[in-house]
Amino acid sequence: MTQLEMARQGIVSDKMKQAAADAGIDAEILRQRIAEGTAIVCHNNMHANGRPLAVGKGLPTRVNANIGTSKDDTSIDNELEKARVAVAAGADAIMDLSTGGPIDEIRRAIIAETQACIGSVPLYQAACDTVVKKGKAIVDMTADEIFDGIKKHLDDGVDFITVHCGVTLSTVERMDNEGRIMDVVSRGGSFTVAWMTHNNAENPLYEQYDRLLELVKPYDATLSLGDGFRPGCLADATDRAQIHELIILGELTQRAWDAGIQVMIEGPGHVPLNQIEANIQLQKSLCHGAPFYVLGPLVTDIAPGYDHITCAIGGAVAAGAGADFLCYVTPSEHLCLPNVQDVHDGVMATRIAAHAADIVKGLPGAMEKDIAMSKARKGLDWETQYCLAIDPELARKRRGESGVDEEHGACTMCGEFCAYKVMDERKPKQ
Amino acid sequence: MTQLEMARQGIVSDKMKQAAADAGIDAEILRQRIAEGTAIVCHNNMHANGRPLAVGKGLPTRVNANIGTSKDDTSIDNELEKARVAVAAGADAIMDLSTGGPIDEIRRAIIAETQACIGSVPLYQAACDTVVKKGKAIVDMTADEIFDGIKKHLDDGVDFITVHCGVTLSTVERMDNEGRIMDVVSRGGSFTVAWMTHNNAENPLYEQYDRLLELVKPYDATLSLGDGFRPGCLADATDRAQIHELIILGELTQRAWDAGIQVMIEGPGHVPLNQIEANIQLQKSLCHGAPFYVLGPLVTDIAPGYDHITCAIGGAVAAGAGADFLCYVTPSEHLCLPNVQDVHDGVMATRIAAHAADIVKGLPGAMEKDIAMSKARKGLDWETQYCLAIDPELARKRRGESGVDEEHGACTMCGEFCAYKVMDERKPKQ
Repeated sequence: MTQLEMARQGIVSDKMKQAAADAGIDAEILRQRIAEGTAIVCHNNMHANGRPLAVGKGLPTRVNANIGTSKDDTSIDNELEKARVAVAAGADAIMDLSTGGPIDEIRRAIIAETQACIGSVPLYQAACDTVVKKGKAIVDMTADEIFDGIKKHLDDGVDFITVHCGVTLSTVERMDNEGRIMDVVSRGGSFTVAWMTHNNAENPLYEQYDRLLELVKPYDATLSLGDGFRPGCLADATDRAQIHELIILGELTQRAWDAGIQVMIEGPGHVPLNQIEANIQLQKSLCHGAPFYVLGPLVTDIAPGYDHITCAIGGAVAAGAGADFLCYVTPSEHLCLPNVQDVHDGVMATRIAAHAADIVKGLPGAMEKDIAMSKARKGLDWETQYCLAIDPELARKRRGESGVDEEHGACTMCGEFCAYKVMDERKPKQ
Repeated sequence: MTQLEMARQGIVSDKMKQAAADAGIDAEILRQRIAEGTAIVCHNNMHANGRPLAVGKGLPTRVNANIGTSKDDTSIDNELEKARVAVAAGADAIMDLSTGGPIDEIRRAIIAETQACIGSVPLYQAACDTVVKKGKAIVDMTADEIFDGIKKHLDDGVDFITVHCGVTLSTVERMDNEGRIMDVVSRGGSFTVAWMTHNNAENPLYEQYDRLLELVKPYDATLSLGDGFRPGCLADATDRAQIHELIILGELTQRAWDAGIQVMIEGPGHVPLNQIEANIQLQKSLCHGAPFYVLGPLVTDIAPGYDHITCAIGGAVAAGAGADFLCYVTPSEHLCLPNVQDVHDGVMATRIAAHAADIVKGLPGAMEKDIAMSKARKGLDWETQYCLAIDPELARKRRGESGVDEEHGACTMCGEFCAYKVMDERKPKQ
C-alpha cells in the first residue's frame, strides 16, 4: 500500500510518524491531511538514507534548493558542496537539476550525501542523454526513453519528480493564440512543447498518464506536477495558458489520488505582487487543496543579481496566502549557474520568506521564535540573539567585526544612546 | 508663501515644476495633490544645491538611506562615501542620523556632497550635545535647546525633519498599561519618553507644536511626523500605543496643513506580513491621505544580517498597499552601524521593493521596464539586459565571471538547453 492508501484506511505509518515528529505535528492529524490530499509525506521507498518530509496544510512552509550541473559547469565536487551548504543553511529539500557531466553519478552522489528530501526533473536527463549520448535531437526522444529516464531516477531514490503532464496541445495552442513575451521558460516545458510541435503529437506524459502512475506507484514517490507554462515575466503572468494548465493539473491530481499516489502542484514564476494571492487561491481551488510548490514568485523582472530578494518578496506573500513549499531562487538567477555562496544566500532568503509566512499561517512555534529573539534583543543578550538568529554565524560575525565598545553592551548603531538602554533607565526625577 | 500655500492658490511653483519633471508627472497634477496634502514637494529654501523631491500619491515610491556616525564610529570620510554610494545606487533621499564625532561638520559635508533630498532627526544632536558638550543628562535638556537644535538643522538646509510630536503622556501611559516586549525602540522616541518621565511633563514638541510650525515655516521644510511608538518587534505591532500615536499624528497633520506646512507621517517598524495592509489603510484614513514614510516594515525579528530582505518583503507589501516612501534597512540592522557595502545593498533591496510596488500602483513606466527587460532576456540580448538591470554593474560582473560559453549565447544555468532557445527553434517536422 502507498502512504496515501494507508492514510485513507486510517493507518498511521512509520513514515508518517517520523515526518510528523520532525514537523512537530500530531501524526494522526498528518494522516488525515494525507488522506484528503492536502498534505504529503514525501519519500521514495528506494531512498534508504532519506527522511520522509511532510509538506502541506498545517505544516511549516518548506524550502527547496535547486542545484545541479549544466554543460558549461560539470564539477561533482561543487554540487556536493552546494548540497551540504543548502542543508546546513536549512533547506528541507534539494532538487538535482543536472544537465551536464556524468549526470547519474552526480545524482547518486547527492542522494548519498544528505538525508534531505530529493527531487529531480527526469526529462532533463532524458533530453540530455538523447543529445549527448545518442547524438539525436531532443525532439527525437521516444516516449519509452522518457519513461525509462523517469524509472532511472525513481530507482535511485528520488522522492519527488517534476513531470510536465499538463503541457497539452490545447494549452500550447492557447498560448500561441494569446501571445506571450517569454513563451515557455520552463526547461522541461520547452523540451515538451518542442517535441510536441515537431512530432505533431500529444505530450506522452499526458497521453500516457496512467502508465506514469503505474510506474511511480511501487516507489510511492510524489508526483510534482510541473507548470510548463509558468510565466517567465510579469507581463505573461496569470494568462490563459497558465490557468488552463492549472485546470488540467487539477484533473491530473484527482487521477493520481484515485491511483493512490501523492501529488503536489508546481506554480509560478514571475508574478506581479498584487496577483500572487489570486494565484494561490486558484491553485487551492482548482487542485482541491493539493500542496502548492512555487518557484518564487519573482515580483519584478529587472533585478538580476538580486533575484533571491525578488523571490523572497513573492515567496513570503505566496506562502502567507497558502503556498506550502517554496523553491528558492539565488542571486545568480538569469545570469549564471549558482555558486556555493549563491546557494547559501538563496536558502537564507527563502527561509526568511517561509518563516514570515509561517507567522501569518499561525504555525505553532513560529511567532514564539520572534518573541524569544525580541526579549533577547531588548535585554541586549547578544549570545542568545546569535543562537536564535536564522544565520547565527553571520550575526555573530557582523557584530564581532564592528569594533563595538562592549562597555555599553549595545551595538555601534546607537552606542550608549541605544533606545533600549534609554528606556530601561527612565525614571521620574527624585 | 510656502509651497502648500502656493499650491492652494493654484500656483505651480518652480520647485513643483522641477520635482514634477524629475518624477515624470504633470506639474498641475502635482500641484493639486500638494494642495490636498496627498503629495509633498520636499525642499528647504536654505538647501541651495538640493533638488526638490516630490513624494506621495501618483509618484514613484521613494527610497531613503539612513547614514551617519555613532559615538563608536565617527569617520566623516566613511559617511561621505556612504552618501555617494547611496545616491549612486538610486536613493532619492538621505537621512543623516549622526550621533558621534563633529555632528555639525558631518551634516554640512553630506549636504554639500549630493543634490539628494536630506532628512535628519534634530533631537538626536540636541541630546548628544547635551551629554557630550554640556555634560548634562539627556533628560536635562531644555525645550529651548530642543528648538535651537531644530533651527540649526533647518539653517543648514535639511529638507525634512523627523519630529516625534505624537509622543504624549497619554500615549506613554497607554503603552505602559498594555505592556510591550520592546517598549520604545525609536531613538528619538526613547529620548522623549525618558525626558517626559523624568520631568513629569508633556513633550515640548507636542505642547509647543505651534512654535514648531512657526519655526519651520520660513524654511518651508517638511515635517516628518515621527512614530516614537513604532513597534520594535512583531509582537508589539499594531498595539494601542502605536495606533493612538497615529491618531494624534493625524490631528497634528491637519494643524500643520492649516499653518501651510507640508507633512509626511512615519510608520513602522516590525509588523507581521498580514498586518501591513491594515497599517497602511489606517494611516491613510487617520492622516487624511498624507504621504506615508515607513521604516521597513520588517516581517520577522529573527533575521539579523538579512534585514535588508525582511525589509524588502514588508516594504514591497506596504508600498503596494499605498505607502509612498520607504526607508531602507541594511544587512547590519540590529548588529552594527552599516558599512559602505551595507548601504549599497540596502538601497538596492529597497529599490526592488519600491519598483515591485510601483507596478502594483500602476505607475506609468514601471511595468514597461519589466517588459523591456523580458524582451531583451528572451532575445538573449545581454547588453540590453545589463543596461535595464537595477544594478547593471553587478549583473554584468556575475555573468562575466561565470565562464560562459558565448557560442550558445545563453548562460551557464542551462547552456545550450536554454528554454528560450529551445522554444525559438521549435518547428514542425519537415
